[in-house]
Amino acid sequence: MTQPPRGFPETEFQKRTRAAQALMAEQGLAALLLTTEPEIRYYTGFLTRFWESPTRPWFVIVPATGDPIAVIPSIGAHLMVQCWITDIRTWAAPDYEDDGTGLLVDTLSEIVPVSGAIGLADQMESHVRMPLADLRRLEAALAPRRLVGDATITRRLRMVKSEAEIAKIHHAAGIANRAFDRVPEHVSAGLSLSYVFRRFQMLCLEEKADWVPYLAGAADAGGYADVISPATDIPLAMGDVLMLDTGLVWDGYFCDFDRNYSVGTPAPHVAAAHARLIDATHAAAEIAKPGALISDLFHAMNRVVNPSGDVMEAGRLGHGLGMQLTEWPSIIPQDHTVLVPGMVLTLEPSVTVRDGKILVHEENIVVREGEAEFLSVPQAHEMRVI
Amino acid sequence: MTQPPRGFPETEFQKRTRAAQALMAEQGLAALLLTTEPEIRYYTGFLTRFWESPTRPWFVIVPATGDPIAVIPSIGAHLMVQCWITDIRTWAAPDYEDDGTGLLVDTLSEIVPVSGAIGLADQMESHVRMPLADLRRLEAALAPRRLVGDATITRRLRMVKSEAEIAKIHHAAGIANRAFDRVPEHVSAGLSLSYVFRRFQMLCLEEKADWVPYLAGAADAGGYADVISPATDIPLAMGDVLMLDTGLVWDGYFCDFDRNYSVGTPAPHVAAAHARLIDATHAAAEIAKPGALISDLFHAMNRVVNPSGDVMEAGRLGHGLGMQLTEWPSIIPQDHTVLVPGMVLTLEPSVTVRDGKILVHEENIVVREGEAEFLSVPQAHEMRVI
Repeated sequence: MTQPPRGFPETEFQKRTRAAQALMAEQGLAALLLTTEPEIRYYTGFLTRFWESPTRPWFVIVPATGDPIAVIPSIGAHLMVQCWITDIRTWAAPDYEDDGTGLLVDTLSEIVPVSGAIGLADQMESHVRMPLADLRRLEAALAPRRLVGDATITRRLRMVKSEAEIAKIHHAAGIANRAFDRVPEHVSAGLSLSYVFRRFQMLCLEEKADWVPYLAGAADAGGYADVISPATDIPLAMGDVLMLDTGLVWDGYFCDFDRNYSVGTPAPHVAAAHARLIDATHAAAEIAKPGALISDLFHAMNRVVNPSGDVMEAGRLGHGLGMQLTEWPSIIPQDHTVLVPGMVLTLEPSVTVRDGKILVHEENIVVREGEAEFLSVPQAHEMRVI
Repeated sequence: MTQPPRGFPETEFQKRTRAAQALMAEQGLAALLLTTEPEIRYYTGFLTRFWESPTRPWFVIVPATGDPIAVIPSIGAHLMVQCWITDIRTWAAPDYEDDGTGLLVDTLSEIVPVSGAIGLADQMESHVRMPLADLRRLEAALAPRRLVGDATITRRLRMVKSEAEIAKIHHAAGIANRAFDRVPEHVSAGLSLSYVFRRFQMLCLEEKADWVPYLAGAADAGGYADVISPATDIPLAMGDVLMLDTGLVWDGYFCDFDRNYSVGTPAPHVAAAHARLIDATHAAAEIAKPGALISDLFHAMNRVVNPSGDVMEAGRLGHGLGMQLTEWPSIIPQDHTVLVPGMVLTLEPSVTVRDGKILVHEENIVVREGEAEFLSVPQAHEMRVI
């Protein structure tokens, strides 16, 4: 696959900003205040792994009109200057007396009238990435201006991807496809799951992932009980099902899908369970067209994996995907979001095998005008064998 | 190096909990409410990469007496049951009507008297990982109980590491040492920085890192201008200085140090600048004894790298290290924390070379009863050459 270009043209960031400003006008918001990595990157393109450090807060403001304004630690200025925005205000962080709050108050006071409202992401899947004491200080200093919810403006915009974003997710998925295909060359019975995890991450990097922020998995006889635990040093044994689920990143965009491998020929009931999962993903993919509801996808999969109609407790059956491993919406019966072209989703049904063991399968799709397009190469009914 | 055991004995978590409870009693706190990955892991041992997903909030409560209580999404129950705590309450997340807030209110109401105060981390380096609307709902539902600051209790406890924690950080540093030593075998002029980044992450995994959450670096003629940007596709050229700075993880603990490589023999002024950085780290390490202040370490390094006395703006000269890439405290002139045995620190001086270019060097040490111990193998004055 040809590698798409890195970054985005400036027009893409302008379009995102103007779209946010149109929704802000509807909601009567004089500014959006952004504090988290994906929010800030969405409007500015600021891409760095430095967010791994919790020390410094970072702020970007989307005003009612005009371009975003960055209020950031000076260590980030050199990188932010390379982004499209030009109003960049910095302080020498960490500052134990005032770690950016004063500069943020000054900047917001400049652009928000005293009667104005400033929107902050405050709904599910969000948090405010700044110390709570500073948030309270900010609120007091800005009064009578109000800090209010952002009416999920950024979440809603991010849910529908541009072609440039889809190309990056598709590229990330292609890297994972190739890494998954190479697993049987490198893994065999007797090797520990922790070795398999390390080796798989190397395969992702060999296939040109930028990095591998997420790898979960499990291996146990005829299925597994848990999909979020770290790897153990227990060796793979004949009859195990090995599951590897990766969120690797290319140019800041994730793929998120898994593959199951039978160590030796799978037992007939395991093979049948796996085939059922494949049927479930196709049942959802076939109806994932504009106008369908997220809840329709849930029921299409659940009918296949739980013919009794039961709903597994831990379970959503997929979610949005993009700048983060998991994004809005969740594929649950209560989500009635209408599908539109450009939504990227994971389809992630799970099925109970025996003795409380489960199998989970996952694919990545994008909603198109007609049929949905698979971004991961869809897995065959037959299980992969090691 | 022998690999230390994974995990911790239950007594370590009990000790952390009792230490927090002693400080809570001093502050009049009836409970601590924990919402972030390191806080929750510190008291429970709950270790998973699943935090990469922003969807679900997770809560742990440290009551005034007794063991911590988990209030978590059911998808985490299987892993939390394997930790030492026994009171685990779950809900089926994501729940669009009430994503855990109700269960959290019920639990806190049970253990906190109506006149009681509940402490939340609210100072520098912290944030509250739950939607702001839910935090406001929680605050209203718990009244007249109050949500207040936690008096940095968890931050203070985490600042001083146990021997078991130090062994994990030391082991992570050993992995990075070996990966850095192997760079010249794999890197040469003409290869792109993005290739070098991928290859270096593979070396870390080959040397048995669990994963590589952080890699920053740069390569440019005679120094670099920025240490947080992602890798470009620009090939390494003769005369470049390549810097790689990794935070790799073993069993949930980070190392954090860098190494500089000259592509070809370094120019004399570059070699001299590098030697000065080594002198600076040793100047700080030599005085890093119990009773010294963090600000003393700053001045010891700054005297060497900035003989004029100037302080670089972007700049702290190191920080705490452990469950996170960067932890409290910051090595800045304003920090007067008294050193005690068990503090793990990075020493990270930077020096201006020419034309706005800088060099940064970093080592990891632990404060001991006598001399500080290097956890990274200290770099020689001579620069590494590719």
